[in-house]
Amino acid sequence: MIKIAVDAMGGDFAPKITVLGAMDAVKQFEDIEITLFGDQDKINEFLIAHPRIKVEKTTQVIDMGEKDPIRAIRNNKDSSMVRAMYSVKEGQTQALVSAGPTQAIIAGAHLVIKRMSLMHRVALAPIIPSTDGRGRILLDVGANIELRSEHLLELALYATITAREYLGIKDPKVALINIGSEEGKGRDLEKETFQLLKNHPMINFMGNIEGKEVLSTDADIMLTDGYTGNVLMKTVEGTAKAMGSMLKEEIKSSLGGKIGYLFMRKNLKRFSKRLDASEIGGAMIFGIQAPVIKAHGSSSAYAFKNAIAQARLFVKNDVLNQVNEALEKTLTKEE
Amino acid sequence: MIKIAVDAMGGDFAPKITVLGAMDAVKQFEDIEITLFGDQDKINEFLIAHPRIKVEKTTQVIDMGEKDPIRAIRNNKDSSMVRAMYSVKEGQTQALVSAGPTQAIIAGAHLVIKRMSLMHRVALAPIIPSTDGRGRILLDVGANIELRSEHLLELALYATITAREYLGIKDPKVALINIGSEEGKGRDLEKETFQLLKNHPMINFMGNIEGKEVLSTDADIMLTDGYTGNVLMKTVEGTAKAMGSMLKEEIKSSLGGKIGYLFMRKNLKRFSKRLDASEIGGAMIFGIQAPVIKAHGSSSAYAFKNAIAQARLFVKNDVLNQVNEALEKTLTKEE
Repeated sequence: MIKIAVDAMGGDFAPKITVLGAMDAVKQFEDIEITLFGDQDKINEFLIAHPRIKVEKTTQVIDMGEKDPIRAIRNNKDSSMVRAMYSVKEGQTQALVSAGPTQAIIAGAHLVIKRMSLMHRVALAPIIPSTDGRGRILLDVGANIELRSEHLLELALYATITAREYLGIKDPKVALINIGSEEGKGRDLEKETFQLLKNHPMINFMGNIEGKEVLSTDADIMLTDGYTGNVLMKTVEGTAKAMGSMLKEEIKSSLGGKIGYLFMRKNLKRFSKRLDASEIGGAMIFGIQAPVIKAHGSSSAYAFKNAIAQARLFVKNDVLNQVNEALEKTLTKEE
Repeated sequence: MIKIAVDAMGGDFAPKITVLGAMDAVKQFEDIEITLFGDQDKINEFLIAHPRIKVEKTTQVIDMGEKDPIRAIRNNKDSSMVRAMYSVKEGQTQALVSAGPTQAIIAGAHLVIKRMSLMHRVALAPIIPSTDGRGRILLDVGANIELRSEHLLELALYATITAREYLGIKDPKVALINIGSEEGKGRDLEKETFQLLKNHPMINFMGNIEGKEVLSTDADIMLTDGYTGNVLMKTVEGTAKAMGSMLKEEIKSSLGGKIGYLFMRKNLKRFSKRLDASEIGGAMIFGIQAPVIKAHGSSSAYAFKNAIAQARLFVKNDVLNQVNEALEKTLTKEE
């Protein structure tokens, strides 16, 4: 049995969608057992008793607007998130899923579950949509605003194993985000990271990619520091949203547009779904001693179930031990 | 008379579009005189003699694929670009317009025309489209991959005066690109720059903006280092392009889509024009001793004419002297 801790109170629509998502997950996967952490009464409004769902009662919730994530973790020991983290830490469960505030999850994962000893930094790694519908891993999008090249190498190894075991890609291609495609471009960070990636036997490095390729590249993994990744990811979101509203405005601006819309309503619906991340589940937090999945704050039950499915695969395919082995090999080689 | 030097051989469609753009410009503006630098025979294929257009014969062209921009400038003294730069340097003309390779223009502007003594860095500053059609200045998009906070302050002053004198905005709002909107977010660069901008009397600072606001913010000027700005700008371009092709795919995928298209063809055309930069002209190079405008490599004659119009306004409204005055005041205050 794979045991998954779920922060039932995190996210904009908790505990409804977290409970519904958990119920869907145990239906779909015979090999998982879920512990919901949260307000028993509120959970019971939605939960239909199931032999593989337990509830652990907690009294606090970490607020979505929390500004100081470390204080939030320290001052809310009986929150659904922190209690779920302790259950992972103490081995009652093996992975964590939460739709709570991102920075609190990252801080809590650090403080409670702790970093893997061979990973020197953690990273927030969403799977971002692509024009061909495959999805690819982008990291870091904001766990560390500054990273060194050796950190990016460790994270690239983690991402490579994740793409193989979780996305099912045989030899995942890694690309470095940069301001030009040629070797030698970028800041010292990119120049140094380029060399480390190029020379590592376990990394299938395809070189630099520019911002314009983010949705169309062949790469399975796109690597950058947390500042750039955060700006980049939000720029994709913002541009997609702005274009969506401009399209709507133009269609509404004339009778022809409105009639045309009646004919192609379904097409436009499919279009707007193509950059929607909800199919994919959550963002992964790389580098923690257990799999931690951060579901989107506004997740539907379906997206939340997908986040639980992600956590399940991490445990099932033993991603963390594989990462540890890869890092150990890298260290031995360097000595 | 405002005297403008035009690199007639730069860009993908030179000298056809540069010559046609120059002819349109002298028609539209009675107060400009243009000197075209380039291959006399090729220019003559398109040029209709005009009293305010002169031609200076040059024998070399800086290749669009040039990898080493500094070498390109040094080894091509008789190129249309370098000769046009010397004419600005020596005072025969007052501003430069080129659609040649960006990095060569930046290098040449540095080496030949030189930096303003009070500006410690130059920046490449395109005007990027926005959902409301106003356009706003983004900088730096790649002249300097690393900048310090005091450089960003100088560039913000330059941009403020440009937005006022060129875009006609009375009290232009400056925003700092960051990973969160609150004060205190970001790297040391953003934290320090935030304080400098907040405390400068000539800057109307509105705070941090995130990547998702790039197309929808109220800001007139968006400030960041050249690495982030380059990634950000290309991400907007790439996302817009990817969405355009996905929309096309979905529309073509069914009969309903195709029929709908017939009704809303005009609407979709307007939609695809809204993020098109050709209306706007070129990117400005801030910090050089004369106005330098880099037109897009694939500019149409119309876009190239707009780039010439930009150069004209820079000279007419005496932007550089105003920037110098603002920088002098800043220095005096600091002493």
